[in-house]
Amino acid sequence: DEVMAVAREMVGKEIEKHAADGLGRVDYALASGGAYVVKHSEVYGGIKGGFPFPGISGRAGVHANSGKMLRPSFGEPGDCFALKGSSGFVQIKLRTAIVPEAITLEHVAKSVAYDRSSAPKDCRVSGWFKGQETTDLTRNAEKMFSLAEFTYDLEKSNAQTFGISDSSGVGVIDMIRLDFTSNHGSASHTCIYRFRVHGHEPDSIVPLAIQS
Amino acid sequence: DEVMAVAREMVGKEIEKHAADGLGRVDYALASGGAYVVKHSEVYGGIKGGFPFPGISGRAGVHANSGKMLRPSFGEPGDCFALKGSSGFVQIKLRTAIVPEAITLEHVAKSVAYDRSSAPKDCRVSGWFKGQETTDLTRNAEKMFSLAEFTYDLEKSNAQTFGISDSSGVGVIDMIRLDFTSNHGSASHTCIYRFRVHGHEPDSIVPLAIQS
Amino acid sequence: DEVMAVAREMVGKEIEKHAADGLGRVDYALASGGAYVVKHSEVYGGIKGGFPFPGISGRAGVHANSGKMLRPSFGEPGDCFALKGSSGFVQIKLRTAIVPEAITLEHVAKSVAYDRSSAPKDCRVSGWFKGQETTDLTRNAEKMFSLAEFTYDLEKSNAQTFGISDSSGVGVIDMIRLDFTSNHGSASHTCIYRFRVHGHEPDSIVPLAIQS
Ligand SMILES: [K+]
Ligand SMILES: [K+]
Ligand SMILES: [K+]
Repeated sequence: DEVMAVAREMVGKEIEKHAADGLGRVDYALASGGAYVVKHSEVYGGIKGGFPFPGISGRAGVHANSGKMLRPSFGEPGDCFALKGSSGFVQIKLRTAIVPEAITLEHVAKSVAYDRSSAPKDCRVSGWFKGQETTDLTRNAEKMFSLAEFTYDLEKSNAQTFGISDSSGVGVIDMIRLDFTSNHGSASHTCIYRFRVHGHEPDSIVPLAIQS
Repeated sequence: DEVMAVAREMVGKEIEKHAADGLGRVDYALASGGAYVVKHSEVYGGIKGGFPFPGISGRAGVHANSGKMLRPSFGEPGDCFALKGSSGFVQIKLRTAIVPEAITLEHVAKSVAYDRSSAPKDCRVSGWFKGQETTDLTRNAEKMFSLAEFTYDLEKSNAQTFGISDSSGVGVIDMIRLDFTSNHGSASHTCIYRFRVHGHEPDSIVPLAIQS
Repeated sequence: DEVMAVAREMVGKEIEKHAADGLGRVDYALASGGAYVVKHSEVYGGIKGGFPFPGISGRAGVHANSGKMLRPSFGEPGDCFALKGSSGFVQIKLRTAIVPEAITLEHVAKSVAYDRSSAPKDCRVSGWFKGQETTDLTRNAEKMFSLAEFTYDLEKSNAQTFGISDSSGVGVIDMIRLDFTSNHGSASHTCIYRFRVHGHEPDSIVPLAIQS
């Protein structure tokens, strides 16, 4: 009985975490929070749906499908942002300036996938502080931080979180870039289902890169 | 082994409840069931997205974002119906006339929230029977019931259910109104992520308020 | 402690399955995977929302709501493809040619439903290989396979999976048809919340029906 009570509490906590975006962790790259893709490598045209139309939330040169990687979904196979070839990048303006702590890269779950050869493999994440678009010349002194290098592993959970190597040395950032240099076998395209950025808002938003 | 069998069954039941709209309880304020917002206090304009456009399901003076509070979602921060200031109200036509038993107010989960100062705090729920819009004068005798007064607690689960104080004395209702008189700190706006109404359909739809 | 570790692992697996489209099984009738409804019996007009408009993904004579049955959702009551009367059918072009192993028929969960009299009851599923639309006369030799006959049971889980009777004798198919000959009581309409098709891709896509 006591075991069951403890078990019940554990189950409640696990379901609560699952219900809280799967990880129970704040995501500063979430579209509903104000983040958006500002730039990306060439889109894979073979995937149906999604047009580079200039809509309400459209940005020049940014594909309408890009928002898919900044939003939760039911995890359906095919419902991703697909980029051409086996290497490429996506650059994201975060909701606000943060001290980054970790990122999460998610692909379709193994059990429901038709094929996972389009999953990114070797990846590199970098970040910097851009601030408001301005003509202020001091802002050109953007310092880029290397945040993480990792390999997305098809044998692990489909949402894989990677810590920022040396969080203490990294300053405040509001732009982040994911580069993938290889994928799991597809010659035609690489699919990004979701990318999240975890961290905390600094007490002051003056970036370390400019402070020094 | 026996413990595990019992545990497995418990887990199955908990996940089933989670999959059944989180609570496993019928919601008569659900948009897909035919409920809709008929009136609300001033909308907070600072939240991007959502326009008071006259669309297919548009109603005069009702903001398009209002439907968000009558629908399940992934619980993303920012994906709510935002009203101006720290007090206000929303009035909802239910799917059908019911004897109300409880209501549920939901805010974004703590673990994924950027900030929860926009959560409603002190609330009051009232209901009445309106019936079909008609020129029938007897219909003006709408009797309003006070259904519940409660405080949304940031330390508890994000979906909080409150029973109807004296369910037996309450008649049949098809309109419900949520008034919030304070929030958890935001001076600019209050966010409603979801509002549900639980109860049962009466054998006869003649409202007690008119029966007597 | 050891019991808890085993329990925790079990819970993790169950939640993972739940997160993976509820069943953790590949679905070849998924809209995001490229499947679509090609034909259906008369739609029930009483259900609001959804118009037979000729949109981007529209097909002649196919109702826009038909896609609802090939997509995951939050399982809200009313969010289904509703057909007129207590018998009817839906015909689906699968994402690709497969050897079928099972199908899953899903209705709204009992705990959140207003009424389940619109659930299909006695059903029959058949399939065949159609291939590309072509004038090639040999393609007219489509051989239809009877895949399953079953009764959707309101007392069981809302997503019910039925195996293909004799999977070994069934050839490769890319078209599937669900016929329901009765429902659980509604005289006006029958609702299909979701229909899935499980199986595996053959090494060769030459259908057995033509091979022989
Ligand atoms: K997504
Ligand atoms: K919602
Ligand atoms: K569905």
